[in-house]
Amino acid sequence: MKIIKTPETLSRYLKKLKSRGNSIGFIPTMGALHEGHLSLIRAARQENKITVVSIFVNPAQFSPKEDLKKYPRPLNKDLTFCRKEKVDYVFLPRAKDMYPEGFSTYTCVEGLSERLCGRARPGHFRGVATIVLKFFNIIRPDTAYFGQKDAQQAIIIRRMVKDLNVPVKIKVMPTVRGEGGLALSSRNIYMSALEMQDSLVLFKALNLAKVLINGGLRNASRIISRMKELINRKQHAKIDFVAIVDARDLKPLKTISGDYLIALAVRIGKTRLIDNFQGRLLI
Amino acid sequence: MKIIKTPETLSRYLKKLKSRGNSIGFIPTMGALHEGHLSLIRAARQENKITVVSIFVNPAQFSPKEDLKKYPRPLNKDLTFCRKEKVDYVFLPRAKDMYPEGFSTYTCVEGLSERLCGRARPGHFRGVATIVLKFFNIIRPDTAYFGQKDAQQAIIIRRMVKDLNVPVKIKVMPTVRGEGGLALSSRNIYMSALEMQDSLVLFKALNLAKVLINGGLRNASRIISRMKELINRKQHAKIDFVAIVDARDLKPLKTISGDYLIALAVRIGKTRLIDNFQGRLLI
Repeated sequence: MKIIKTPETLSRYLKKLKSRGNSIGFIPTMGALHEGHLSLIRAARQENKITVVSIFVNPAQFSPKEDLKKYPRPLNKDLTFCRKEKVDYVFLPRAKDMYPEGFSTYTCVEGLSERLCGRARPGHFRGVATIVLKFFNIIRPDTAYFGQKDAQQAIIIRRMVKDLNVPVKIKVMPTVRGEGGLALSSRNIYMSALEMQDSLVLFKALNLAKVLINGGLRNASRIISRMKELINRKQHAKIDFVAIVDARDLKPLKTISGDYLIALAVRIGKTRLIDNFQGRLLI
Repeated sequence: MKIIKTPETLSRYLKKLKSRGNSIGFIPTMGALHEGHLSLIRAARQENKITVVSIFVNPAQFSPKEDLKKYPRPLNKDLTFCRKEKVDYVFLPRAKDMYPEGFSTYTCVEGLSERLCGRARPGHFRGVATIVLKFFNIIRPDTAYFGQKDAQQAIIIRRMVKDLNVPVKIKVMPTVRGEGGLALSSRNIYMSALEMQDSLVLFKALNLAKVLINGGLRNASRIISRMKELINRKQHAKIDFVAIVDARDLKPLKTISGDYLIALAVRIGKTRLIDNFQGRLLI
């Protein structure tokens, strides 16, 4: 496994490998790797000759009020994890190489970026789209892998790739869950044992929605009410949003049909957790 | 010469050619080709195996008040021109293929895009950066060629390429001038014979600035005053701006030094013309 720190070096290595016909699978991460990342790495390994993982806590996607400094950075553990999974290249850039002095170009997916998580996190998806596009240009992967847990992120990246004719295939892998259904996230470690208990309510609320939909309910606001009711019973839970939207444009649905996304963000104590369920209803 | 209308087809052709080691030179144009474009095409031909010219009047860089509909589109003449110059591929996309329904991703070079021409043309450089990035992703050229006449555009594209790690080399070729020094532009045909006479004042004003600088004057506002004085003598001329800026960040200079750009935009009748001189003063 090669650990590479500068964009130029990585581009040079990968260009050579690509010119010899090797396919490249890429997983962008912020480190603090868990089983969710593992499923992406394994998919990349299976489908490509070369697997590249980036570990970069991207300042451009954190607002000044957010947890950039506090975000976990267990680098040695992450590298051991990658080595064990036979990752070929780990890209570990420094912030000053990714955003050198004078940096001023950003990519925005308008509309999609302002909805759901974008409301509480203005600028977040601009930062995500920009760094992902930079990585794509440096690495030129054949396929890049994202997790369904960050559904809005995946939808935005797909839109960006289509709109800007970026020659990369996007694969979205299912959310990996721990005991009780909690979606794995690097931020879960912020929670106390009691908060951890309450955090299971996100998955329970999604399951409640599924039961209601399977039972024939189509009225989005009634489903959302029932979900909120359930979540509000938990002492440590404070709802940011619960939404049922069209999975293509993330606009709220009144009546569920077609490709829909049920997404929620809930603060458990000080930790903001997200989860979602994406489904299709053919009428 | 192949004329290609869809991004997918062009990508497929060029990918094959690139995999065989052919270098690609690319010239993005809005058509109405003139000797300025010719100098770009010849440079591309000289330095690359394959030359690609795009002809696309990009709606995203025109504001609703601007001349999108009126912009000249002498397609047959342009194709004859390209054929004569032995261009290999002409890319002639339709607007609905470049901006399909739901399109919502834009690339902005902040700061640089709001200065000089960006003031009178908000959104213009966002449209330019976005279409150029799309073309780069479709064509994946080794080198792309731009004209010094559009100095701000060239500076913005260079910044974008650097910031987003786009693996394309940018070459900027000198402004080609007609009789009397008028910078060639597709918009020159809008002018009457009398206006054409007055339009020479842009080049004269730049030459005046050069003479003053060579004579030792460094005070930007005094040079600008003298240039404006000269331009205002012309009946059909209405100054949009005359500016002396740092060529890296396009911020106004008080005292000329280092890499500087003298840029001006003047309306001659209803036609907005631009011109510039880029220099370096080593103190």
